[in-house]
Amino acid sequence: MVTFRPPVAEQRFVLDHVVRLAEITSQDQFAAAESDMVEAILDGAASLAANEWAPLNRVGDTNPPRWNDTVVTMPPGFREAYRTYVEGGWGTIAAPSAFEGQGLPSTLAFGVAESLGAANLGFSLGPMLTQGAIEALVKHGSPELQAAYLPKLVTGEWTGTMNLTEPNAGSDVGALRSSATPAGDGSWRVKGNKIFITFGEHDLAENIIHLVLARTPDAPAGTRGISLFLVPKFLPDGSRNDVHCASIEHKLGIHASPTCVMSFGDNDDCRGWLIGPEFGGMRAMFTMMNNARLNVGLQGVQIAERATQQAVAYALERVQSPRASNPEGGPVAIIEHPDVRRMILRMKAQTQAIRSLVYAAAGELDRAHLGIEGAKQRLDLLTPLAKAHGTDVGCEVASLGVQVHGGMGFIEETGAAQHYRDVRITPIYEGTNGIQAADLVGRKLVGDEGAQMHALIADVRSETKNAGLLALTDQISTLTGVLVKASTDDRLAASAPYLTMVSVMTCGWLLERQGTAAAGLLANGEGDSAFLKAKLATVNWYLAHIVPEASGLAASVAEGGKGLYDLTAEELAA
Amino acid sequence: MVTFRPPVAEQRFVLDHVVRLAEITSQDQFAAAESDMVEAILDGAASLAANEWAPLNRVGDTNPPRWNDTVVTMPPGFREAYRTYVEGGWGTIAAPSAFEGQGLPSTLAFGVAESLGAANLGFSLGPMLTQGAIEALVKHGSPELQAAYLPKLVTGEWTGTMNLTEPNAGSDVGALRSSATPAGDGSWRVKGNKIFITFGEHDLAENIIHLVLARTPDAPAGTRGISLFLVPKFLPDGSRNDVHCASIEHKLGIHASPTCVMSFGDNDDCRGWLIGPEFGGMRAMFTMMNNARLNVGLQGVQIAERATQQAVAYALERVQSPRASNPEGGPVAIIEHPDVRRMILRMKAQTQAIRSLVYAAAGELDRAHLGIEGAKQRLDLLTPLAKAHGTDVGCEVASLGVQVHGGMGFIEETGAAQHYRDVRITPIYEGTNGIQAADLVGRKLVGDEGAQMHALIADVRSETKNAGLLALTDQISTLTGVLVKASTDDRLAASAPYLTMVSVMTCGWLLERQGTAAAGLLANGEGDSAFLKAKLATVNWYLAHIVPEASGLAASVAEGGKGLYDLTAEELAA
Repeated sequence: MVTFRPPVAEQRFVLDHVVRLAEITSQDQFAAAESDMVEAILDGAASLAANEWAPLNRVGDTNPPRWNDTVVTMPPGFREAYRTYVEGGWGTIAAPSAFEGQGLPSTLAFGVAESLGAANLGFSLGPMLTQGAIEALVKHGSPELQAAYLPKLVTGEWTGTMNLTEPNAGSDVGALRSSATPAGDGSWRVKGNKIFITFGEHDLAENIIHLVLARTPDAPAGTRGISLFLVPKFLPDGSRNDVHCASIEHKLGIHASPTCVMSFGDNDDCRGWLIGPEFGGMRAMFTMMNNARLNVGLQGVQIAERATQQAVAYALERVQSPRASNPEGGPVAIIEHPDVRRMILRMKAQTQAIRSLVYAAAGELDRAHLGIEGAKQRLDLLTPLAKAHGTDVGCEVASLGVQVHGGMGFIEETGAAQHYRDVRITPIYEGTNGIQAADLVGRKLVGDEGAQMHALIADVRSETKNAGLLALTDQISTLTGVLVKASTDDRLAASAPYLTMVSVMTCGWLLERQGTAAAGLLANGEGDSAFLKAKLATVNWYLAHIVPEASGLAASVAEGGKGLYDLTAEELAA
Repeated sequence: MVTFRPPVAEQRFVLDHVVRLAEITSQDQFAAAESDMVEAILDGAASLAANEWAPLNRVGDTNPPRWNDTVVTMPPGFREAYRTYVEGGWGTIAAPSAFEGQGLPSTLAFGVAESLGAANLGFSLGPMLTQGAIEALVKHGSPELQAAYLPKLVTGEWTGTMNLTEPNAGSDVGALRSSATPAGDGSWRVKGNKIFITFGEHDLAENIIHLVLARTPDAPAGTRGISLFLVPKFLPDGSRNDVHCASIEHKLGIHASPTCVMSFGDNDDCRGWLIGPEFGGMRAMFTMMNNARLNVGLQGVQIAERATQQAVAYALERVQSPRASNPEGGPVAIIEHPDVRRMILRMKAQTQAIRSLVYAAAGELDRAHLGIEGAKQRLDLLTPLAKAHGTDVGCEVASLGVQVHGGMGFIEETGAAQHYRDVRITPIYEGTNGIQAADLVGRKLVGDEGAQMHALIADVRSETKNAGLLALTDQISTLTGVLVKASTDDRLAASAPYLTMVSVMTCGWLLERQGTAAAGLLANGEGDSAFLKAKLATVNWYLAHIVPEASGLAASVAEGGKGLYDLTAEELAA
C-alpha cells in the first residue's frame, strides 16, 4: 500500500493566497489562530491522518462494519483510531469555546478534515456528521439542549447523525412521514423509519445523538410542516431510548461507514426534544446541510488528492517502454510518457482547482461569521459549486488514477479501485449534483436576478489576465442573462453544464491568483522554489486545457431544454 | 433486478443505415445473410441474452469463480448457460465454413456479441477471447493446427486464451521473457509466467487452447524476437499439458471472468506448437488484438446499453417531487425532471453514438474481407476510435446510470453499481486508451501523413448539413495538419483529446445519417414511428450538445505538450 502524505504545504498556500487567512485572523475573534498555531494544527492532523487513519483505509474497505441484532461492530482498529482523534481534540477546532470548542476559523477545521478524510473517507463520515449536528444545535437548540449535548458532541465522546431520508422521501424531503407527538412533559414521542443514515449505529462512542426530521400532529403538508428533533440513543438518565438500527447497507464504496436503516419508536417509547420552533425543521436542516455540502465538496478534494498521490507514486516506479521520442533510450518510468504525464498533470491541476474552490467557500463561511459584508451571499453562491464540481472532479480524478495504473488499477489490492468506488457517493448524497445545479440556477441565480453571479464575474475579470478565462467570463455573463429570463424548464435543463462553466471559471481565477503569487515569490527568492515551480506548472496547465474545455459547454447551456420534451417519458423509454 | 431487453430494432437500424449491410450481403460470399436470417439471428441472440445470460449477471458478480489448487470453478448456472451457447451455435456465425463456421458477416457476430455481453459482460469474455484465438489460427496457423483445433474452438466446445502480459511486460509486450525451445519433434517446450489471463482456467469446456507469446533461443530483443505458440491444456493424446493456473485476481469488476496467473512449464514439460513463422508473433498478435479491440469497444456499447435501460426503468418508476415548472402538479416520475431527462437523453445519445462507431468499424472488417478498396485503411483508422471512445463513453454512461438512481445507485443490490465497476476495465485492457490514442496519431496519422484522416473528414463534410459538425471538421482538419508536422511529444500529448474530437465527429456523422433516414421513413409513413421519433430526438440532442462540447477540446490539442516537461518527474511528484 502506498504511503499517504497530507499536502500540508499546499493547504497552507491555499489558506494564505486563496482564503487569505491573515485577513480573517486579523479580527479579534480569530486572533488566536496565529501562524504557528495554523502550522501546528495542519501538521498534527497530517500526522494523525498519515500514521493512524490511512493504514486503516483498506482495513475498513475489506472488513466492513458488521450488523447483528441492532448492534454494529466497527472494523478492527477503528475504536483505537477514534479514541486518538477524540483525545487529540481534533473535533473541537471550530466549535464555540462555550462548549469545549477552540473557537478557531472554520477554514482550519476544513484543513484538518481534508487530511483525515483523504486518509480514510468512510471513517471520517462519523466526525463530519457530528459537526453538522453541532452546528444545528449551536444555531437552533435551546440552552438546555445545548448544555446537555454540545460539550460531548464537540469533544467527540458522543457522535451525531442526520435523519432525513425515508424510502419515499429522498430529494423530496417534504414527503417524509415520520411523526412526533407531544408527550406532555416537554418531550415528544418519535415514530418512523429512516434510511441511508450514516453512522446511525456503531461502537465508537458512548452515545449517538440523532437529529431527526418528523411531522407533528396537524402539520401542514410538504416542507413547511417539518420539525427537527433530538433523539439520543441513551437518554439523560442513562436508559436506552427506543431507537434501533434495523440493518446496514451493502454499498459500492465507503464500506467503513455504516449506512443504517433506523427504526424510531418500534415500542412507542422513543423520546425526542424539539430543536428550534415547531415547523422550523427545514431551516435547521439547511444549517446542517450547507455545512455538509461544503464538507462533501471537500471529500472530492480528499479522494482526488489521495488518488493523485497514489497514481504519481506508481507512475514514478513503474518502468515500461522507451520514450517514443527517444526509442533507443531504454525503458523509462511511465510518468515520462506524454499521455501518462498529461493524466498526472490533469489530476494535479484538477485537484488543486477544487481545493481552491472549496477552501474559498470555507473562507466565506468564516467571513460571514465575522459579519463581513457580502460574505454570506458569496458563500451561498459558492456552496453548490463546491459540492457539485468538487465531487464531479473527485470522480474524474479517481478514475484517471485507475487508468494510470493500467491493469493493476483494476486489482483491488492496489487500492486505486477503492478510491474510484468510495468517491462515487459524493455526487449523490447531501443533495445530488442535479439538486445543486437546480439550487444554483434557481435560488442563487433567479433569486437575485443574477446580481451575485455578476459580482463573481466582475471579481474574476478584475483580476485575471488570461485570455481564455476572460472569454469564459464573457460566455457566462451572456448565458447568465439568458438563464435569468429563461423558462424554468430551460433553466433547469441548462443547469448542469452551466454549473460546470461557472465552477471552472472560479477555479481558474483562484488558480491564476496562486500562480501570480508563486511567480512573485520565486522572483523574490522567497518560499520553497520546488513547490512554487510545481504550482506554476499546474496552474498554467489548468488555464491552457481545462478552461477552454469548459467554454465548449456554452452551446449546451444556450440550447437549454430544446427538444428535451419532444418525446413523452414512455416514448423516451421505448 | 431490472429486466434486460437487447435493443434488436436499434441494432437492425444501425446495420441497415450505418453499416449498410445490404451492400455487404449483395456480395456472393455473404449472400446467405438474407434479411430474414439477420432478423432470426439478432432475435435468437437477444432471447438467449435476456432469458439465460442476463439473470446470471449478478450471480457472477456475487459468486465469483473460485480457485483451488489450479482448478477454477465457475459460478452456479454458468456451465448450463455456456452449454446453451454452444448448442445454439452462437460462436460459429462469422467463422469459416471449412471449420464448422457459418461464414456470415462479422457485423452479425457483433450484433450477437452486443446482446450477450450486455447481458453478462464477465461471462462473455470467454467466447470473445475464443474468437480472437480462432482468428489467429485461421490467418496464421498451419493446416495441421487448423484441422486439429479450429473445429472445436469454433463450436465453443473448447475455448481459447491470449497469453501476452507478464509482470514486467504490459503495454511493452516486447519486454516479455517467456521462452520456447525446440523439442526436436516439431513441438516446443514453453516456459514462463503470464498474468491477467482472461478465462485462463475454468470448468466450462473440455479443453482450453492457450495462445502464448514467447521468445525462442537467440531471438532478437524486443518485439521482433517474439513468436506465437499454441499450448493446449490437454494434449492431442488426451494427457494433461504442463500449464496451470497459479491463482486468480480479486478485481473491481467483471467478477464472473476468471483472471488468471498462468504458469507454463513448471515441470519443464509444457508442449506448444508454433503458429506462423518464428518471430511472427507480433503480427499474429495484432490479428487477435485488432479483433479484440473492436470487441472491447463493443463492450462500452454493451454496458452503456444495459446501464441506460436500467436507469430509464428506474427513472420511470421512481416518483419524487412535482415538476419545478408546475409546483402544484403533484409528484412526478423523476424522468419528468429536466436534469434527469437530460441525463437519460445523454445516456441514450452517447450509447447510440458509440454503437454506430463500433458497428461502422465492424462493417469495414467485412468490406476488407471482401477486398473492397479502402476498407482496410478505414478499419485501421476506426479501430482506435472504436476501442477508446467506445469505452470512455461506456464509463461515462455507467456513471450517469448510477447518478440517475440517486442513493439507490450506490447500493449494490440495485445493480447500477456493477455496471460502473464492470466497465472500468474496458479503457485499460487490449491496449490502454492511451495506447489507442498513440496508435491513432502515430501509425494511423503520421503513417500516411494524414491521408486517411482527411478522407474521413471529406466523407463527413460531403454528408453533413449540421453547422456544429462542420465547424468540428474544420477544427480537426487544421489540427490534423498541425499534428502531422508536430514533434513526437507534442503529438502524443495531444493524442487523447484529439482522439475524442475525431470520435465525436465520426459519431455525429453516423448519427446524423440515421436521423436523415429516420426523417425520410417517417415522412413516407414507413417503419416504426415510435422508434424513428425517438431516434430523431437522440440524434438531435447529440448534435446540439455533444458535438460542440468536443469543439472545446481544440485548444487542448493545439497546446500539445507545451509545459508538459517543465518539471522533472521528481519535481512533478514532490
